Amino acid sequence: MPVSLESFHAVIPAGGAGTRLWPLSRAGRPKFLLDLDGSGRSLLQQTWDRLHELIPAERIHVVTGAAHADAIREQLPELTGLFVEPSPRDSMPAIGLAAAVIGASDPDAIIASFAADHIIDEQAAFADAIEQAVAVARTGLITTIGITPTGPSTAFGYIESGAPLVVEGAGSARAVSAFVEKPDEATAVAYVASGSHSWNGGMFVTRTDVLLGHLARLQPGLHDGLVGIADAWTTDRSQEVLEAAWPTLTKIAIDHAIAEPVSLEGGMAVVPGTFTWDDVGDFAALQDVGAASSTDTVWVDSDGLAIAADGTTIAVIGLRDVVVVRTADALLVTTRAHAQQVKEVVAELRGRGRTDLL
Amino acid sequence: MPVSLESFHAVIPAGGAGTRLWPLSRAGRPKFLLDLDGSGRSLLQQTWDRLHELIPAERIHVVTGAAHADAIREQLPELTGLFVEPSPRDSMPAIGLAAAVIGASDPDAIIASFAADHIIDEQAAFADAIEQAVAVARTGLITTIGITPTGPSTAFGYIESGAPLVVEGAGSARAVSAFVEKPDEATAVAYVASGSHSWNGGMFVTRTDVLLGHLARLQPGLHDGLVGIADAWTTDRSQEVLEAAWPTLTKIAIDHAIAEPVSLEGGMAVVPGTFTWDDVGDFAALQDVGAASSTDTVWVDSDGLAIAADGTTIAVIGLRDVVVVRTADALLVTTRAHAQQVKEVVAELRGRGRTDLL
Repeated sequence: MPVSLESFHAVIPAGGAGTRLWPLSRAGRPKFLLDLDGSGRSLLQQTWDRLHELIPAERIHVVTGAAHADAIREQLPELTGLFVEPSPRDSMPAIGLAAAVIGASDPDAIIASFAADHIIDEQAAFADAIEQAVAVARTGLITTIGITPTGPSTAFGYIESGAPLVVEGAGSARAVSAFVEKPDEATAVAYVASGSHSWNGGMFVTRTDVLLGHLARLQPGLHDGLVGIADAWTTDRSQEVLEAAWPTLTKIAIDHAIAEPVSLEGGMAVVPGTFTWDDVGDFAALQDVGAASSTDTVWVDSDGLAIAADGTTIAVIGLRDVVVVRTADALLVTTRAHAQQVKEVVAELRGRGRTDLL
Repeated sequence: MPVSLESFHAVIPAGGAGTRLWPLSRAGRPKFLLDLDGSGRSLLQQTWDRLHELIPAERIHVVTGAAHADAIREQLPELTGLFVEPSPRDSMPAIGLAAAVIGASDPDAIIASFAADHIIDEQAAFADAIEQAVAVARTGLITTIGITPTGPSTAFGYIESGAPLVVEGAGSARAVSAFVEKPDEATAVAYVASGSHSWNGGMFVTRTDVLLGHLARLQPGLHDGLVGIADAWTTDRSQEVLEAAWPTLTKIAIDHAIAEPVSLEGGMAVVPGTFTWDDVGDFAALQDVGAASSTDTVWVDSDGLAIAADGTTIAVIGLRDVVVVRTADALLVTTRAHAQQVKEVVAELRGRGRTDLL
C-alpha cells in the first residue's frame, strides 16, 4: 500500500434500482447486486475489488438501505463498515454519515465516494487518479475525479476545470471552475471540444473535517443531525438516535449540497480519470461493456443483445440492434436506440400496481 | 339434417406441426391441437364442430399419426372413426385409407376431406358449399370447394374453373380446367383479376368408388395396398395387415395423385366457397384471424402481437408490427413482415440437435 493512501477510506453508497435495466434489475435485486457483464462478480463486488487492491477491508464502507443489507453482507464477507440507512435521503446524508462516523475515530481520515454500480477498467490509472486526488484533498480542497469524456454524452453532468494547481504528487490537478448539469447535445459537443470538461462520475475525495466544515456552513441542520448521530455511534443509543434523527435530515445530493456551491467558492479541485469508465446506464451501455447474448440464441437476419436470465432459448428474426431480456417472470423487447425508455415500462408497471415486477 | 347429405362422411387428415407458428406449435403439440384464436376450442375441435352441425359424429373421421392419437381422442370424445397411420405417407394414403374403409361398409358413401388446422367462419355459406359439392360429387365428378380469394396470395395453389355445370342443387358448380401450383406475385394478381381462379384449400368431395376407380388407374400399387388394408379392416388381422402394407404405399399428396391428372381429363368440378377461410399459416395470419396479445402486455411506442403462453408479462418499446411469442422454454421475437421466416428458426434448432424445442 502506498504511504500516500494512509487514513484513506472509501465510501460506497449502494442505492438505486437501475430502472433502465429492467427486468434484470429490480427494487429487490438492484443493479449493483447483479453480475451484469458476466465477470462472475456483481458491480458492487467489482467496486470492492478495485478498492481493496488499494486499501484494507476495514477502510471500505458501504451505505445502503435495510432491504439490501443482508445481500450486501453476503456478497462482501470481508465488509466490516456497513451503514444501514433507515430510509433513503439521497447521497449527502449517506456520505455525510460515513464522514462523521469515520472522522470521529480517525481525525486525519480522507474519504472518497464511489458509486456501487459503475464499471471501471485499467486499475493502474484508477489508482493513480485516487493517489493524486488524495494528495490534493490533504491540502483542504474537496477533490473530484473527472472522467475523460469518450464522446459528447448528454447523460452526465460535466466538471469544468480551471487553472492548474501545484500540489506535490498531483501533477494533473486543476481547480474546478464549475459543475454543470447534463447538457443538451450541442453544449455537450462544445464541452468535449473545449478539452476542459470532464464527466462527473460522483467520485468525491475529501478530508472529513473539510466536508463537515462546509456542511456546517451550507447545510447546518443536516450537519448537526449527522454529528449527533456520529456522537452516539459507539454507544448503546446509536440505533435509537439514528432512527430519531434520520427522517429529519434534508434529502439532497452531494452535488447540490457541496460540489456546486463549494466549486463557486474555489474550494474544489479535479484530477483527470483516464481509466475506462461506464455507468452501465442502459442495455446499450451494457452491451458496450461486453455483456454477451445467451449462447444458444438463434439469430436470423438479426443482431443485438439477447439475454435469457432463465436459461431458455431466444430466437430473433429480421431485427437489427434489438434488445431482448427475459427473466422468469417478465420480458423486455426493444432496440438499442430505445434503451433509455425502459424506465417508462417500470413507471407503467408501477401505475398498474404490478409491484411484483418492480 | 338435409337429405342431400345422406351417406356423406367427413375425413380430417390431422398432421403437420405448423413450423411457422413455433414456439407455440411443436412436433408434440401441433397447430391443429392448439386454441390459436382464443376461442376456447382447438383448430381441430373447431373443424369438428363445423362438420358436426351437418352430420352425426359417426360420420366424422380423423386420420393421424400414433403420436397424436391420444390427444385427439381427448379433444374429441365423440369421435369413433380414428384412423392411426403407422407413419406419415402424405395426404393420398391417408384419405385413400378412409375412402376404402368407409366405402366398404357404405357403397353410396361420399367423403370430403377437410384440413384439421384451418379457420372457417360463416357456417351457412360453408354448409351451402358442401351441399352443392355433394350434389356434384354424386354425379361422379371429384369436386373441390374453391376458396374465393381475398387477395393475390402467393401462399396457395389455385384452381382454374371452366364451363358451368348443370347439376340440380349445385347452381354454382363449374368444371375445373386446371390445378395450378403456388404462383409468383404477378401471376397471382392475374389469377385474381381473371375471376375464374380460386384458392385450393384442400377440400375434396368424392364418391368413394369414384376416388378408388381413379386410384386404380393412376396409382394402382397404392390402390391395391389400400384395398388390401380395407379388406382386413374388420378382421382380427387388421393391425397386422396395416403395418405390413403401409410402409409400401407411395408417399404422395392427393393434389398430385388425383386432382391434377383428373382435372386434365375433365373429371373434376369446383363449387365456390364464399365463406371466410384462413389457413393460419404464420403469426401475421394468426393476428388477422383475431388472436389477441396477452392483456398485461406493456406497449411503449409499439404495436403488434405479443403472446405470453406462460402467463408472464411482456414489455415492448419502439417496435411496430412486432411479433413476440413466449412459451415456458422458448421465445420468438420478429415482425409481421418476417413471419414466414419462423420456419428457419425451427430448421436451425433441428440442425443444432435441439429436439427438445421442436
